[in-house]
Amino acid sequence: MPLPQEFQDLARRVNNWGRWGTDDEIGTLNLITDEVIRAAAAGIRTGRRIPLALPLRHDGVQTGLIPGRVNPLHTMTAINQELFGPHTVATSDDAVTMGLQAATHWDGLTHVSHSGRLYNDRPADSITAHAGATLLGLEKAPPIVSRGVLLDIARVHGTDRLPGGHAVTPEDLDAAEELARTTVRSGDIVLIRTGQIRHYLAGDREAYAFPSPGLSVRTPEWFHARDVAAVANDTLTFEIFPPEIENLWLPVHALDLVEMGMLQGQNWNLEELSESCAAAGRFSFLLSAMAEPFVGASGAPVAPVAIL
Amino acid sequence: MPLPQEFQDLARRVNNWGRWGTDDEIGTLNLITDEVIRAAAAGIRTGRRIPLALPLRHDGVQTGLIPGRVNPLHTMTAINQELFGPHTVATSDDAVTMGLQAATHWDGLTHVSHSGRLYNDRPADSITAHAGATLLGLEKAPPIVSRGVLLDIARVHGTDRLPGGHAVTPEDLDAAEELARTTVRSGDIVLIRTGQIRHYLAGDREAYAFPSPGLSVRTPEWFHARDVAAVANDTLTFEIFPPEIENLWLPVHALDLVEMGMLQGQNWNLEELSESCAAAGRFSFLLSAMAEPFVGASGAPVAPVAIL
Amino acid sequence: MPLPQEFQDLARRVNNWGRWGTDDEIGTLNLITDEVIRAAAAGIRTGRRIPLALPLRHDGVQTGLIPGRVNPLHTMTAINQELFGPHTVATSDDAVTMGLQAATHWDGLTHVSHSGRLYNDRPADSITAHAGATLLGLEKAPPIVSRGVLLDIARVHGTDRLPGGHAVTPEDLDAAEELARTTVRSGDIVLIRTGQIRHYLAGDREAYAFPSPGLSVRTPEWFHARDVAAVANDTLTFEIFPPEIENLWLPVHALDLVEMGMLQGQNWNLEELSESCAAAGRFSFLLSAMAEPFVGASGAPVAPVAIL
Amino acid sequence: MPLPQEFQDLARRVNNWGRWGTDDEIGTLNLITDEVIRAAAAGIRTGRRIPLALPLRHDGVQTGLIPGRVNPLHTMTAINQELFGPHTVATSDDAVTMGLQAATHWDGLTHVSHSGRLYNDRPADSITAHAGATLLGLEKAPPIVSRGVLLDIARVHGTDRLPGGHAVTPEDLDAAEELARTTVRSGDIVLIRTGQIRHYLAGDREAYAFPSPGLSVRTPEWFHARDVAAVANDTLTFEIFPPEIENLWLPVHALDLVEMGMLQGQNWNLEELSESCAAAGRFSFLLSAMAEPFVGASGAPVAPVAIL
Repeated sequence: MPLPQEFQDLARRVNNWGRWGTDDEIGTLNLITDEVIRAAAAGIRTGRRIPLALPLRHDGVQTGLIPGRVNPLHTMTAINQELFGPHTVATSDDAVTMGLQAATHWDGLTHVSHSGRLYNDRPADSITAHAGATLLGLEKAPPIVSRGVLLDIARVHGTDRLPGGHAVTPEDLDAAEELARTTVRSGDIVLIRTGQIRHYLAGDREAYAFPSPGLSVRTPEWFHARDVAAVANDTLTFEIFPPEIENLWLPVHALDLVEMGMLQGQNWNLEELSESCAAAGRFSFLLSAMAEPFVGASGAPVAPVAIL
Repeated sequence: MPLPQEFQDLARRVNNWGRWGTDDEIGTLNLITDEVIRAAAAGIRTGRRIPLALPLRHDGVQTGLIPGRVNPLHTMTAINQELFGPHTVATSDDAVTMGLQAATHWDGLTHVSHSGRLYNDRPADSITAHAGATLLGLEKAPPIVSRGVLLDIARVHGTDRLPGGHAVTPEDLDAAEELARTTVRSGDIVLIRTGQIRHYLAGDREAYAFPSPGLSVRTPEWFHARDVAAVANDTLTFEIFPPEIENLWLPVHALDLVEMGMLQGQNWNLEELSESCAAAGRFSFLLSAMAEPFVGASGAPVAPVAIL
Repeated sequence: MPLPQEFQDLARRVNNWGRWGTDDEIGTLNLITDEVIRAAAAGIRTGRRIPLALPLRHDGVQTGLIPGRVNPLHTMTAINQELFGPHTVATSDDAVTMGLQAATHWDGLTHVSHSGRLYNDRPADSITAHAGATLLGLEKAPPIVSRGVLLDIARVHGTDRLPGGHAVTPEDLDAAEELARTTVRSGDIVLIRTGQIRHYLAGDREAYAFPSPGLSVRTPEWFHARDVAAVANDTLTFEIFPPEIENLWLPVHALDLVEMGMLQGQNWNLEELSESCAAAGRFSFLLSAMAEPFVGASGAPVAPVAIL
Repeated sequence: MPLPQEFQDLARRVNNWGRWGTDDEIGTLNLITDEVIRAAAAGIRTGRRIPLALPLRHDGVQTGLIPGRVNPLHTMTAINQELFGPHTVATSDDAVTMGLQAATHWDGLTHVSHSGRLYNDRPADSITAHAGATLLGLEKAPPIVSRGVLLDIARVHGTDRLPGGHAVTPEDLDAAEELARTTVRSGDIVLIRTGQIRHYLAGDREAYAFPSPGLSVRTPEWFHARDVAAVANDTLTFEIFPPEIENLWLPVHALDLVEMGMLQGQNWNLEELSESCAAAGRFSFLLSAMAEPFVGASGAPVAPVAIL
């Protein structure tokens, strides 16, 4: 089944293939320049640091629906082990097994493909079981630090949490930009708050998963027009789920990752950040969000921090 | 066997138990104030970002000597999986198993105990196989962002890499501080470069592991006197290994983690940072280094970034 | 809270500590002699082999309630990897992460302790995070092969599946022995069918888990009197759950494993075996059920086979 | 590079595609009939049980050369956890991560492919990262129990261990059959002893791995002529390594698994079995060796037992 014409039109309009050379493996992260960082640093006002990662725990956001995307299994490999005899210094060590996309994470550029291609016209079969993503892997990403802008869509709509059926539209983004009293600009990392993660924080993983508010298929053009470097939000699915176009699943993923070469973040906890930004009347900050550099990764955990 | 008197004297001098209250679980991270962050941000000059984490890979720094501290096993749980039929958007996901202390990481406050106690007089048996560290776990840590200062001991000694037997002393730290033309102050995170990681970067894991230059048992007092928030370096063992005091293994760990309540970082790649700092004649920067917030963790991977 | 007097009386009556020497680490497996094997082999009639293990899969019997007891996460570490160039022989490899007690398994003798003791008066703290069970680990077990006897309690009661509240009593065992037209004798491995696993086979994991029919606290004496070598059944909990004695959880585990030193098996699929035994009018067979010999294991997967 | 003519000739002579129908997924395991089992059971003399699996441990036979084929990482997920309050029954649980081909195992029929095909002309791309082997997976195998025959090649050559360069030939197999005073027949599982595993048992993993004695490319015809059900030996590589034919790696794997549809076993410890068989002057037994039934597996651990 060919992809719908509507999708193909959108794809053509946001496509960045070749924009940074045929060998480029980092896409819109190219837009984060030293100047962007200097400006973002200059914007720090209070020095307050707000963590945006969910704690990594066995009862995390995954419900078991997606095989392999397992919540962290944290185990101790040593507990107060007196390596060199009793009554000396003892050590405790731990290990983990987890899905790289299981918790607060970045989707790498290889997380989705369509029509057999990845970003920058790379072949989808460059991903192997043996080596993972041999092209475009997340370990290729430079340190992901930039100006962050919170677009607080829930707040725009005067609610704590958007309803499950809410597609975040370009109009929503415009309204939130206005609320934020800033203009999203080249190299920014945009954080979209829907409030959906409040379901999880309240203990309801099923409600968190589905149905979910999320980005509309119309948003990639908005990000593309502003040359955004990356986008993250507070949902499991990133885009509205179930999807807007019949029989087309994950179109926003395909547009953002494959066509634009723009990283997506999911399961980011934006609640405390929202409170702080609203209280300060300021929705931009320095965002530090480097992905754990797993070689060949299609996704990776991240512990983002907003510095206000 | 009781711990030697020399150790007990050092322990008494650097002890911070009770300093931030009997319930404190974060130790010297208390020293990172908003003011520290503002000053660090104001010190950003170029906007250049330098990553300090080693890539996470199956042939990482672990040699198999420590059971459980396994290099990352990265696997694909889906490759171009067309979830909803052929010729649609396809997804690739990954999973990992790894030791939390296997690569570039922070030691949490529970990573070592001595005499049955952890930092702040907490009982060592508060660590369980079931829940990990029920007190002092790394998920309790606030975002680890502060001013970073590189103390480039190898450069002080005019070498790329200190010899295996080199104990980094307070005198070394003084000399490196002088080279850095800054004064280490309260809340700073200090990065100590020995050059030892060049062994690993050149493909020799065995030489990297042992013998290793590292911090002398005399350094905790130096850090304590300056109220340093955390210390990281570019070795596997952090402290000099084999140790300086006969029959006393990991004394620096015990002093830093248990007595002071100060996080330690290991396997940080400081080579590019060293070049940049030397070229700029400036050895301080904003350091962003939040640990992945594993609940109950005694250690956690981190992807630190220096922003110059 | 001390254990109830009722438990303590039962414990005294079935206790085997010291019976096979103070150093014994295998308990009632001592009862399987070469003679037992010869007799069991001589009893093979048809040569039919019936597997008793559930397939190992990501949607296995675990529901996530018990942290760490995770269903198998099976991943491919290579798929048709042409190690030595294209168009040659290619290899596919796999890896797994799983709880050792997650699927069809044997409980090892260290799976439970009470009052700080394990079987044969061994200290419970001989189990460490570093090495697992340093005493009594499942790798110490000899090959677990013996005569198997199916006691088909569901069939005795004329049902496919006993109700959740059914405690399998000594009277049930007597009746099933009569149905089986054999006498349980020293060294036998007894398989107890409740039919509870039909819930799981029908896709209902929650109903399978709880409430569950299972062995009554009165059954260990029955097994002890007959010198049974091991007992397995087709439930998640082995014993009736919720338990019979208020505020005493897992009393059957404590009696079987700690007092008698007798292995327990759980999540065995006895459905096909039940059909075959009933059709043949014969409920004994050669049972081959060696645990995977994980060093230091408190439990281990097993792929049992009944040979009729 | 096309496969050499020599290989293609051998392949044609041992090919079993279609022999058990176009839908067959178990290959030569079809040869194990109930009659074979009855005869094997009737051959049991002493009732002695000999385990053939290596203990599963972190310092197992893998050296790290093959990414993903990791030695077992055994961890405790609970240690004496008093689930329902202090002084009650406490539980200990464990988990593991391991390569399915890491220790004593069966290669499944999908472990190798050549020219894009698996056994019975199935497409190699039927193996996916998502589901593993969707055809021919090891969970499809019936219980692997049969008559076992030890062909003790080391003993034939009057040595404890064959040299690394020794290719086990059909002539070797003939001589060992003569030593065994039995005739290998349809449905038998043949165990080939080279003594190579003595390297590992003596602590030398590197010597165990390479160079290794092993089966010659001429042996598949021998097995095919006798309609052997499966073959296992005491090496890491199964076949002689480095290989006999220049630029053709794993030809025996390709012939056995792809052409014949015959399982291969590796890392089986045949030392105690060899002693017992020689002492008794009898080299056949009932062999019970069911693979752990991982769904979609290309290989699986097995804890084989020989019953003499």
